[in-house]
Amino acid sequence: MKDQTKKFLLTDKEIPSQWYNIVADMKNKPLPPLDPKTKKPVTLDQMSVIFAEELMKQEMNTTDRYIDIPDEVREMYKIYRGTPLVRAYGLEKALDTPAKIYFKNEGVSPAGSHKPNTAIPQAYYNAKQGIKHLTTETGGGQWGSAIALASQYFGLDLKVFMVKVSYNQKPYRKLMMNTWGAEVIPSPSMLTQAGRDILAHDPENSGSLGTAISEAVEMALQSPEDTKYCLGSVLNHTILHQTVIGIEAMQQMEMAGDEPDVVIGCFGGGSNFGGIAFPFLGKKLREGSKTRVVAIEPASCPKLTRGRFQYDFGDTAGFTPLIPMYTLGHDFQPADIHAGGLRYHGAGSIVSQLIKDGLVEAQSMPQLETFAAGIMFAKSEGIIPAPESTHAIAMAIREAQIAKEEGKERTILFNLSGHGMIDLYAYEQYLAGKLSNYDLPDEIIADSISKLEPIL
Amino acid sequence: MKDQTKKFLLTDKEIPSQWYNIVADMKNKPLPPLDPKTKKPVTLDQMSVIFAEELMKQEMNTTDRYIDIPDEVREMYKIYRGTPLVRAYGLEKALDTPAKIYFKNEGVSPAGSHKPNTAIPQAYYNAKQGIKHLTTETGGGQWGSAIALASQYFGLDLKVFMVKVSYNQKPYRKLMMNTWGAEVIPSPSMLTQAGRDILAHDPENSGSLGTAISEAVEMALQSPEDTKYCLGSVLNHTILHQTVIGIEAMQQMEMAGDEPDVVIGCFGGGSNFGGIAFPFLGKKLREGSKTRVVAIEPASCPKLTRGRFQYDFGDTAGFTPLIPMYTLGHDFQPADIHAGGLRYHGAGSIVSQLIKDGLVEAQSMPQLETFAAGIMFAKSEGIIPAPESTHAIAMAIREAQIAKEEGKERTILFNLSGHGMIDLYAYEQYLAGKLSNYDLPDEIIADSISKLEPIL
Repeated sequence: MKDQTKKFLLTDKEIPSQWYNIVADMKNKPLPPLDPKTKKPVTLDQMSVIFAEELMKQEMNTTDRYIDIPDEVREMYKIYRGTPLVRAYGLEKALDTPAKIYFKNEGVSPAGSHKPNTAIPQAYYNAKQGIKHLTTETGGGQWGSAIALASQYFGLDLKVFMVKVSYNQKPYRKLMMNTWGAEVIPSPSMLTQAGRDILAHDPENSGSLGTAISEAVEMALQSPEDTKYCLGSVLNHTILHQTVIGIEAMQQMEMAGDEPDVVIGCFGGGSNFGGIAFPFLGKKLREGSKTRVVAIEPASCPKLTRGRFQYDFGDTAGFTPLIPMYTLGHDFQPADIHAGGLRYHGAGSIVSQLIKDGLVEAQSMPQLETFAAGIMFAKSEGIIPAPESTHAIAMAIREAQIAKEEGKERTILFNLSGHGMIDLYAYEQYLAGKLSNYDLPDEIIADSISKLEPIL
Repeated sequence: MKDQTKKFLLTDKEIPSQWYNIVADMKNKPLPPLDPKTKKPVTLDQMSVIFAEELMKQEMNTTDRYIDIPDEVREMYKIYRGTPLVRAYGLEKALDTPAKIYFKNEGVSPAGSHKPNTAIPQAYYNAKQGIKHLTTETGGGQWGSAIALASQYFGLDLKVFMVKVSYNQKPYRKLMMNTWGAEVIPSPSMLTQAGRDILAHDPENSGSLGTAISEAVEMALQSPEDTKYCLGSVLNHTILHQTVIGIEAMQQMEMAGDEPDVVIGCFGGGSNFGGIAFPFLGKKLREGSKTRVVAIEPASCPKLTRGRFQYDFGDTAGFTPLIPMYTLGHDFQPADIHAGGLRYHGAGSIVSQLIKDGLVEAQSMPQLETFAAGIMFAKSEGIIPAPESTHAIAMAIREAQIAKEEGKERTILFNLSGHGMIDLYAYEQYLAGKLSNYDLPDEIIADSISKLEPIL
């Protein structure tokens, strides 16, 4: 035990120089996003009005397996990458399991989560294109703080529309964005027509992610020559950028002399899950391997396990293109769980296709089991995890328990997508016995899905 | 620029196996602590009533240059150590300086600061001695959360007396301690005679570090057979444990091919400063070197630059032994600055002797300069620093500006003792223009010092 290696590290030189584009390896490519009016595939020109052009080229790239990471992005990655791959000896001991458990610790980034992996290239490509202003929305604030960090670094001005209820409940996230120079606006606001319309009817409206997206897009469209919108998950290019996690993890698992039997990521829009899983899955698609990849969603927002594969809007208000996704319907209202980053009605188009083709497993997890797992992890490994990440921990624990029951070794890898320092209020609620699981009747899902226009 | 190394890393195997005891290399040893009643040096037996015995042996060890780090402590260090040594290219560029700036990032620990470096061995030695319960106090909460993390890991029950005003103002710190299983009690409390006496006279009393120490010590003395008290700074053994920072930094500076002209640490009780500086200073004492070591204190609590070298109590209430220290007097009330960890009236006995002998430099820094430095660092290096650590950054910037004026290279190393994620309110106050420097008239210091009993 004395000299066993707990952390597998990468030097700055070993930070990947390319992202991995799994679409190039997919036999069945994801279906294209559609223009809601014409029902025809959206074009690069249409998308580039809102987003930086290089990002949209990546979004639509179905052929290049690897895409170079610009030097400027790698330089900024060096602030926190490579992130450690950690052998969870403490958790293994607490579980008394023959399984080997590894986790990739993305909580070491300055914003505390994996979100800077895509925020940095998004800010970079916008700055390179001559864009001066970015707009975005944020719910819980993980994405907003990551893009604030990256925008300031590359000299971009940033406006973040933050769902008003989160703006009031999560002052630390707002302060983090302010400290990195971003302007944070509670949404709905009087700055946009979308916001003014809502406030005219309902001055006390507490906001939603859908409204915040509408406001951010509208603000960007007011001056598209120097202002663009950006998004932290769901879209293909965000997942592409996150594959830096899995590419590093593959190198580090080799250093550890192990190959994972199962790779686990929690699932909101798919960027954290795809980030760790796709490089392993790609290898399996190309060469075959024993590795299963498992996405864990909250039981209260079960699009992967109980949703329908269908074209749906990415936002509540219906401003985005139609995306082919496993969805609960774009006006589905998930219960108010503390894993805010997982409260999203749909999955990105790549993951959805992979689920449909049986290449990705999905499971759902009730809230109380996730917090019990988070507390066990905080005790045995010392790190307080983000509520989102506790879903992956809880699944890793289930896998380790199966290994124990079977009396067999099993190698488990999960992504610790972020730390929970800004989410401690959730733990207080849990420890005080104030949290619950949420039953979600079939009728509610059926009702929500029935409103979708049947394009598939 | 493309392949320059920004972070210098150490593998688990390269984590130091010994701490460095600078007292062994000091020509003039620190004066001993005295029993306030007899004015004679306190004995190991006296100290071991309150503290674990092994810690007190370390406290009084003046001869062994190196002290072995137990395997169990190294195992837990692996959770976050070695910490990265980082070349601050971004800050250098922002300053347009010929200086090379390096920092050691202690903010990567699960508690967010350097405090676990001593919390872990303190919990370990107590557990090894068969102790079941620990008591301690905390002001801002950095120490309390670190010892909560370590206590839970080694199976110790922990009670933290938290200054009531901080308990109310810093809910996240309290929640962090709760999540790691500690009981947090606002002080003054009804659990101790010291607390009850204060509340009887003043039911609204908002507490002080002195009162919290009194309560924690009293609680430990109620059952000394299985309960001990522990302290996060000032005492020699806490600084001994922190030398793991500087020992690592020396290895990493060698990897970088550089030798620091100046090593900088912010200064509260001395453990973070001593931790990074003593290994470098020890080398200078033994072999000679060019390295200066500089302690930075807040201008509003200037014991090193404006205090008197004198025997004084470690706490406000006068419960501790008399310690030979640079002090402003134990009832000095520092202004309410946000670097709570630096609001302490005295310096530990080792640092005080080194200052007296001219081996350590000291400078003071006004609050506004520290926050300006913190913002510059957050912009250029991406990391939001703890308000305490901004003092070291501000001093590094001063040194880099001198290098620029002189047109000479200069190699600067400072300790980033913690991140500022839980201190964002301070940044909000600064950005809103609500913070100020505090003038501290000579008369106030003279008055406070005049109350000391002249033993030296």
